[in-house]
Amino acid sequence: MSRRLTVVGLGPGRADWCTPAVTARLAEATDLVGYAPYLAMVDQAHPARRHPSGNRVEADRAGQALDLAAAGGDVVVVSSGDPGVFAMASAVLEQLDLHPDRWQDVDIDIQPGITAAQAVASRVGAPLGHDFCIISLSDVLKPWTIIERRLDAAAAADFVIAIYNPRSKRRPHQFTDALTVIARHRHPSTPVVVGRQVGRDDETITITDLAHLDPDAIDMSTIVVIGSSTTRVLERSVGSCVYTPRSYSAPNVTGDAPLSSTRS
Amino acid sequence: MSRRLTVVGLGPGRADWCTPAVTARLAEATDLVGYAPYLAMVDQAHPARRHPSGNRVEADRAGQALDLAAAGGDVVVVSSGDPGVFAMASAVLEQLDLHPDRWQDVDIDIQPGITAAQAVASRVGAPLGHDFCIISLSDVLKPWTIIERRLDAAAAADFVIAIYNPRSKRRPHQFTDALTVIARHRHPSTPVVVGRQVGRDDETITITDLAHLDPDAIDMSTIVVIGSSTTRVLERSVGSCVYTPRSYSAPNVTGDAPLSSTRS
Repeated sequence: MSRRLTVVGLGPGRADWCTPAVTARLAEATDLVGYAPYLAMVDQAHPARRHPSGNRVEADRAGQALDLAAAGGDVVVVSSGDPGVFAMASAVLEQLDLHPDRWQDVDIDIQPGITAAQAVASRVGAPLGHDFCIISLSDVLKPWTIIERRLDAAAAADFVIAIYNPRSKRRPHQFTDALTVIARHRHPSTPVVVGRQVGRDDETITITDLAHLDPDAIDMSTIVVIGSSTTRVLERSVGSCVYTPRSYSAPNVTGDAPLSSTRS
Repeated sequence: MSRRLTVVGLGPGRADWCTPAVTARLAEATDLVGYAPYLAMVDQAHPARRHPSGNRVEADRAGQALDLAAAGGDVVVVSSGDPGVFAMASAVLEQLDLHPDRWQDVDIDIQPGITAAQAVASRVGAPLGHDFCIISLSDVLKPWTIIERRLDAAAAADFVIAIYNPRSKRRPHQFTDALTVIARHRHPSTPVVVGRQVGRDDETITITDLAHLDPDAIDMSTIVVIGSSTTRVLERSVGSCVYTPRSYSAPNVTGDAPLSSTRS
């Protein structure tokens, strides 16, 4: 009787970005639980029982996984990216918190993974090389006022900003609204990296700037990284790079403009 | 003639957190360049020439690696964690930016790794399960006024805050100053996770809160994760967990206090 629930992150698609710790847990599992497209990424040779589910049923999926573990299973909940970043680790812990008397003897283990922002960053250089934040624009679980406030604060304080879940069909205007907030504090020439399906066969990575960023090119499989005032694009004959210097007094800092907050 | 420079992240210490992509690059390398303690983490059976260097010589190390690659090497610069987060990827790109006429035909590849904040988070649950930021407190390369402003903005906008390089012997007071800034916006009971030497044999993880956080327990091998107003500690018979719910309307939100900014 194992009674273990491990929440793993496969990383963002590429098999060789999945850690050996995750691979080992998958090999030991009696049951694999997860959003169907993520389960499909796990080698079909694994003998574990598979329990695929749809999108937006995280609470039910977490409860199912905890039940399977409580019944003696060695259960692995499969996330893509890092399960601790807008993913299933919180969903499992929320269920434990809501039902303190259930699943008491289930051991919980979280195995981290490369999250999408890291993968996108690595494809172009090092835009996350200095202070940064990661924000989800999804308002399914938090009010837009909170999102707007966080974007404003992060932009005013000159963080690099990585945006997850940037634009869904249901709320196409919000990404544009987010850019309006950011543009209060950032120059139109601020570098922007758009990564789509990163780590997958149909991956595309685009380097642009705030002025030329096309909202119609953004969807839920996209990660958008907005540079800080010091982020630079480096044109090279073998391809362009984007990076944020380690030093804040980088040569390209264009006066105080990007740092002047609209707050007063 | 390879002329390739790959910057890799080993992750935070544990061998099974290092991605297969990184392992493959290490196996192919003709030269390994890096801070000596990180090179020592790479299997000594690798036949590559090793070029260890001291701390705080990132620019020289990057130049040396680029020179070796330009001379035809298949060079790997070894970072711990993620090389794109406060690490060698930016240092390499800075050198390319400073010397646009040198190293033009060197291919640059960055291979991401698990960064320390993810590892610390995974050890306790999912404190980074909602919007978060990562800030380095080192003022070697940026002025303290910028750091203070970012801490204030991140705390006011209720981000979870992961702090890197929190406290050195040279600037012990700054961590205390940082906590003072954060305390303007966060309740004393806000959960705090302190991870020391995460992924190493002497790893320690402490769950505490803002009121009880002991600055003397913090040093440069520590990562400190400060919760948001919604971050919760879950007491379990098998060990405590810390997580930040996916939903912002979590049951523990204690009125508006943590969200009331001192800005006006």
